[in-house]
Formats: sequence, structure tokens, C-alpha cells
Amino acid sequence: MMERGAIQAGERLPATRELAGRLGLNRTTVSAAYAVLEQSGFLEGHVGRGSFVARRDHAAGSGDSARPFDWDSILPPLARSPGTAQAVEISFANSRPSEEAFPLAEFRSLAKEVIDGAEAAEILQLGSPYGYGPLRRYLLSEASAAGIALPGDDLMITNGCQQALDLIARLFIAAREMVVVEDPVYHGLLRVFSRAKANLIPVPVDNGGIDPDLLARAVEEHRPRLIVLSPSFQNPTGYTLNLDRRKQILEIAQRCGAVVIENDIYSDLRYRGQNLPTLKELDENGQTMLLRSYSKVSFPGLRVGWIIGPRAAIARLVEIKQICDLHSDQLSQAVLLRFAESGELQRHLDRTRRAGLEKLQATLDACGRFLPRGTRFARPDGGMNLWIELPGPLISDKVLALAEERGMSFLPGNYFSENARHERGLRISFGGLSVDQIWRGIKILGDIATEELAASSGPVSFEPAAALV
Amino acid sequence: MMERGAIQAGERLPATRELAGRLGLNRTTVSAAYAVLEQSGFLEGHVGRGSFVARRDHAAGSGDSARPFDWDSILPPLARSPGTAQAVEISFANSRPSEEAFPLAEFRSLAKEVIDGAEAAEILQLGSPYGYGPLRRYLLSEASAAGIALPGDDLMITNGCQQALDLIARLFIAAREMVVVEDPVYHGLLRVFSRAKANLIPVPVDNGGIDPDLLARAVEEHRPRLIVLSPSFQNPTGYTLNLDRRKQILEIAQRCGAVVIENDIYSDLRYRGQNLPTLKELDENGQTMLLRSYSKVSFPGLRVGWIIGPRAAIARLVEIKQICDLHSDQLSQAVLLRFAESGELQRHLDRTRRAGLEKLQATLDACGRFLPRGTRFARPDGGMNLWIELPGPLISDKVLALAEERGMSFLPGNYFSENARHERGLRISFGGLSVDQIWRGIKILGDIATEELAASSGPVSFEPAAALV
Repeated sequence: MMERGAIQAGERLPATRELAGRLGLNRTTVSAAYAVLEQSGFLEGHVGRGSFVARRDHAAGSGDSARPFDWDSILPPLARSPGTAQAVEISFANSRPSEEAFPLAEFRSLAKEVIDGAEAAEILQLGSPYGYGPLRRYLLSEASAAGIALPGDDLMITNGCQQALDLIARLFIAAREMVVVEDPVYHGLLRVFSRAKANLIPVPVDNGGIDPDLLARAVEEHRPRLIVLSPSFQNPTGYTLNLDRRKQILEIAQRCGAVVIENDIYSDLRYRGQNLPTLKELDENGQTMLLRSYSKVSFPGLRVGWIIGPRAAIARLVEIKQICDLHSDQLSQAVLLRFAESGELQRHLDRTRRAGLEKLQATLDACGRFLPRGTRFARPDGGMNLWIELPGPLISDKVLALAEERGMSFLPGNYFSENARHERGLRISFGGLSVDQIWRGIKILGDIATEELAASSGPVSFEPAAALV
Repeated sequence: MMERGAIQAGERLPATRELAGRLGLNRTTVSAAYAVLEQSGFLEGHVGRGSFVARRDHAAGSGDSARPFDWDSILPPLARSPGTAQAVEISFANSRPSEEAFPLAEFRSLAKEVIDGAEAAEILQLGSPYGYGPLRRYLLSEASAAGIALPGDDLMITNGCQQALDLIARLFIAAREMVVVEDPVYHGLLRVFSRAKANLIPVPVDNGGIDPDLLARAVEEHRPRLIVLSPSFQNPTGYTLNLDRRKQILEIAQRCGAVVIENDIYSDLRYRGQNLPTLKELDENGQTMLLRSYSKVSFPGLRVGWIIGPRAAIARLVEIKQICDLHSDQLSQAVLLRFAESGELQRHLDRTRRAGLEKLQATLDACGRFLPRGTRFARPDGGMNLWIELPGPLISDKVLALAEERGMSFLPGNYFSENARHERGLRISFGGLSVDQIWRGIKILGDIATEELAASSGPVSFEPAAALV
């Protein structure tokens, strides 16, 4: 972390006793590690004050006598990442598909068709900020046929959904403008709008998605410019907005004149139950923009997502896209187009849904079996994520440190709000794991939670919480 | 342009006489076109006031009765693009390589190796915001061997050089901070820093690149945070900073404590003369960040560039990259790595340099032969671009309108500064054209310039101009 700059020169390290406690290690182990770091010049110890990160020479080793430029003085501090960098055997930390399930043979054969195709030279030449023409036409005609794209709508390609959010923040948000977000919410969305200096208005989600009454109140008070929602299998909770609420939310948005951003990257991953219409389809008023992506339903390493919305708004987003990176990579766009057009994407989706149902069921069964009484967990019908709330006095951050020691990890709840709330919450991402890994991983979590509850000397708290099912 | 929103509802169109004159068309042609547009509901005519763009219903055709959302009221105006959208036979408007020269057979064979390789699943899985590990290691070890990367340096992958500039603006620039740029300068660089609300300090370039005396003065007055330079075959001029000036500029930067951003995407395209060291290599102080890209030397449709700089700065840029789009597309990164490692990139570069010398020479010969007396043009030794200054009273915008009528285009000089200066200047990008197209295209330019000069009734202006060779 010092090498990466995640811990800065001059920063004080935790006391050995404190860190030992936090990591569940013996204090002498931590002391020995600090001693090694001090000998290597990484740390400076000050008796009675603790251990501090040493300021090191950037040009060290270059051998010249030039005065090195002082980058530290002009750079902002690095954001702290959650403590999931370390490799563990069973990681529930990433919301991504399993690479064992990639249809590699189909990908290989279709990618070669693209590479051998007559369009190869065009793909390799400079492209359009709107995206690769044939893919754009395909997606727009699919969306029109599905009633998602209206006649006045347009479509642009982005580097996955993350770039779509960033472009939207850059178009719509000036400093201190109001943006309604779900609470808890996808961390990458928080970071986009925080960086744009928006004022975030978190509105709680329960097992029916964001609460319309609370949304109406927040909207009345803050008159937001944007309402950003993930109606289906929301990250991090897995919750889905039911049809009634979808309609209520559109009415609220219509009354207040806010643009609705529908982050819809998981809806194709429904494993059971009825499909629900998107907000974009339900919105007769035309104030919703829909974000989709191939990342969750095919290959995350190929960065292709898209935005559907009114032509005037897309034209502005395209302008910003061109400033950001000219256009998206065309080889991946062409390969994914072939993947979709050939029907292989649909076959892959069918397989993914069958496997997804098994994984989801395993996760729910294991949670029911291993998590201690008092734990609440979501029961989604699709997606890759599921929210768990540990009973008091457990704190997910501390449980995580113990879980990593036993080869299991997840993301703690404080990662999913602007002010590190949801300290009892945690996100389990099961999409990338096998059924066996899921069982073993949730058992580790359950064991730790049970042990920690038993060891907790304080009274167990039974504070009221929203029903999470 | 109305469809795209480039001309907005309510905007007044030029009078038919004025537009006819500007485009070199008969006035009745323009009147007929206006009539068609009015019948189609695109225009509204107001007698005595002119023709105005009609406000149209975004939901037209959707058939429902919902009140459409008023996007116009919340969207900023679109930036006007230069008038080069129309297809012409010989376009000097794009600084890009010729797709006829793409080594398609080699690309196909190497891309298939990657696709069939054991690393395919890893490539398709979610990656790192630093870039695809094997490519990053390869580029960093090449840069270290060349003396470009110092021991404390790191390297990150970007979606071409455009994203590198955008990330740098987002890291270093808050509103009203000072950034020194060349004048004239690459339009995409202008837009990045304008959008970041930087105060741009334009410093003139002459045939030896940016002028160190003027730079020293500007730096003293404005204390810029960044100095952004393209020392080799600058876009749009083609000028190269000589060795003495490179050293002087680093001294100036060192005195004022500004970060130097070296935009170095053309230096591999030297067709004659001696290679010059990069600023990054010459900078013993470590305050330069180097931007490079595969776009100009291989396939622009694959978006892969990179930044080399001190580890602390790269770590911050990576943080922003993750917010922007998580990471760059991995398939293209892996294919370009194979292309470089196999030696095919080097062979392609050798061929490109031989072809580039012919194109450059044809451009210079044709300029010398066809452009009228009083025209000045750059004489670069590489790259893809060359700056021309027409003699007064010619204006490159007007010459462009006439040239497009004859099937030839370029970018006018006013495109390359913040305040639409350089009205006599224009950029010729010869990299994507054949020798025959170059001769024919420059002849059209020369013919028009000569005719317009002859037709100009006003006195020819002989205002002093910086020596451009």
C-alpha cells in the first residue's frame, strides 16, 4: 500500500496492538513486520508516538543528482480501497460472471469470423464516437422492436455501463446539483457522482426496491436534477422494483421534472418469476435514459455498454464521449455484435440463467442454514448480488478481516454509501463462484458470525430495521 | 445538422443570398432547399425576418398523448463542428494512417493466436484499471530499456492518447487553473482542457516548435500548473522541437514547478533526419509525464495508449480511470501486445516510414508547385500533418467551402485555437492518402487559392508573420 501510495508519507500506522487485534494476528507478528519495514526504510519509528511512513526519494536508484520534483505536494490523497485487495480462495467481492462458464469455443469461432471478415479494415480504422455503426443499428432496432426505444430516441456505445454513468454525470451535473441515488448503492456510481461534486440524496431501498414515499418526500424537498435507479436486481442488494412502484416512481419524476437514469445491466439475468417492463418502456413522458451493457451477460473484459435516450441528449453525450476517448474500441464491438446476431448470446444467456438459478438457490440455502439467528438477507430472483444484514453488535468490516484470514471475502456495507453507513450490511456476489464455493464460503461467514456473536460480551442489539425479507 | 441538434430549434438560418454566396451555389438552389425543409416541418419562415429552425415534437410518431419532457430546456447547446462532415473524394481532414496500408494478414494471424491462446478467458474477464498486465509489463520494460521510464516510474494503459489527456485534466486541473498549450494546438486537447475550465495560455510555435522565450515569459506571468507539449511532429503544424529548445523548456519547467505533459504519439513516424530524445528522457528532475499510443503507428480503431510517469501520479490517474470506465478493453490490448512482441509492429513501422516519406515529399512538392506565391508551409521530417498559411486576404474557412465543392477538404486554422484565431492557417493531414490523391488534392487547393487571390478586389495584405520556413 505504501508502494502504491495508498498509505502516504508521513501517515501514522496503527499501533501494533491495535492492528494485531484488527487482523486477528499475534502482536509479535505485527511488531516483527514493522521492524522489517523500518529496516527497509519504509517506516520511521518515533518512541512514544508510533510508526510513521517514511518519505522516500522518487528518483532513488537513478543515480543522478537532480533535485526530484515534489509530486506529493501537488497530488490529492488517494482514496482508501476496501480491504479486499488480498487474494482469497473464495471471493464474493466481485459482481462478475464466472470465467469457467465463458463460451470460449463459440467466442473463438465468431471472433475469427470477424477478423477474417471484409469489415476488418474498417474496424481497425478510426471510428465514430456514437459507436461502431453495425452494432449501433442492431441494438437500436432490437430496442425499437421491444418498445424500449421511441421514434425520437437514439443510441450510443460506451465502454461499459461505468462510462455511461460518467458521461451522464459530466453532461447533467454541475457542483452541488442534487442527485437521488439508492441507499445502499453501487460504489462506482457513488464515485462518479461524488467526483462530479453532486449533492447525493440517498433514498433507502427495501425488498421492493426504492421506497416511493421516501422518494416523493426527498424529491419534494431537494428538487433533484437526476434520479438514478437500478430497478432490477440492484447492486448491491439484489432487490427489484415491483411494477406498481415503477409506475409510482415515473409519476414522481414527471411531477418534479427530473431525468431518470435507469441502470439496467442485470435484468437479463432473471432466474425465476416474470420479467418486468423497464422504466424506459413505461415512461410515456420520455424523460428516462436506459443504460445497458454486455459486461454482466457475456465478457466483462470486452468493454461494451450503451445508452438509449432522446436524440438531443445522446448528441450531447456523444460530444463528451469524443472528448473522453474519441470512441470505444471497435474490435470488441464487432465481436459482440457477431455474438449477439449469431444467437450465441441468447444460448449463453439460457445456460447462464440455469446456472444462475442453481447459484442463487445455493446462496439462499446456505444463508438460511449457516447464518446465525437475527441475520437478515435478501431473496432476489436474479442478478449476481445479495445483501446481508448481520445482527448487532456485529460489524461487517471486522467480520471481513476475520473471513479473509479463513480464505473468504466480500464487500462490507460501508462501501455502498457516501458516509460509510450500513456497518452491519455486506454484499455477497455469487455470480462468479461455483455452488461448492458458495456453500463453503457462506459457511465460513456463518461460522465467524456465530463465533463473534457468542464472544460478544455486550448485550445483543435488537434495533428495528426495515423488513428485508 | 438539425437532426443531430447541431442547429437548434429557434435558430435563424442564413439568408439564401448569403448562404448561396458562401457555398458557391446559385441562390435559387438554396431557396428550393429551404422550401423543401419548410414543407417537411424543419423550418418556419417569417416574412421579412428570415427562416427559423422549427421546434419539433420529440415524441412525434409515438402516438401517445403524454406531454413530452422538455429536454431542450435542460441541455447545453451543442458545440459547432467544423464544416468537414460531408464526404469528399480527397479528405486531408483526418490525422490518421491509411487503411489500405494496414497489415491485415499479419493482424489476422496474430489476433487468432491471441484468441486461441490459453489467456483468452483471462482477457475476457474483468481486468485492472492499470491495464492488461502482460502489455503493461512489456511497455514498461521497453521504456526502462530505452531510458524513458525511471526506477520510480509506473505505466498505465488508456483508451488512446485522448483519454490520457482527459485523465490528466481531471487529476490536475480545477476551474481557472493555468495550462500552457501550443498555439496552434490539437483540437481534442483544447476541448479537454476547456471542458475542465482551465485557463489556457497559448504560446506560439514556430518551425522549431514552441518558442522558449515566449514560454518563459508566459510561465513567469501565469505560473501554470501544466505545460502540455507535442515536441515531435506536432499536430497541427508538423513542427518539431529541436534539442536545444527541449533542454531550455525543461529548465523553464523546473524553475516554475509545472508538470510537463509530453504528448508523443508521432515521434515513431520520423521519415528522415535524426531521432531526438523525448523530454521525459532529458528530464533529470522527474516532472514530465509521457503519453504514447498505438493509434497512429498501427490501428486507430483499437483504442490503446499509455502514460509513463512517477508512481504516485499514475496511482491517482488509475483511480480516475476506474471511475471513468473501470479499465480499457482487453482484447485489443492483448492483440497489440502480440503485434509488438512478434516484431510485426516494427516491420509495419519500417514500411510506414518508407511510405510516409513518399507522401511527405509529394505533399511538399505539390505545395511548392501549386500554392500561390505568398503561401507559407511547414517542412516537417515526419508525422502526418503540415501547416499552411495562405496569403492575405484569403481566409481558410472560405477556401474550405470552395474546396469541398471540388471534392477536397482539410481543417481550417480556426479549429486549432480557443478563440478561432489562425484564419489564414489550415492543416493538411497527408497520412491517410495516396501520393496521387495528395497531388490532386493540393492542386485543387492551389487552384482555388490562386483564383481567389486573382478575384480579390481589395489590396493584398503583407502583414508580418513569424517565419514558418
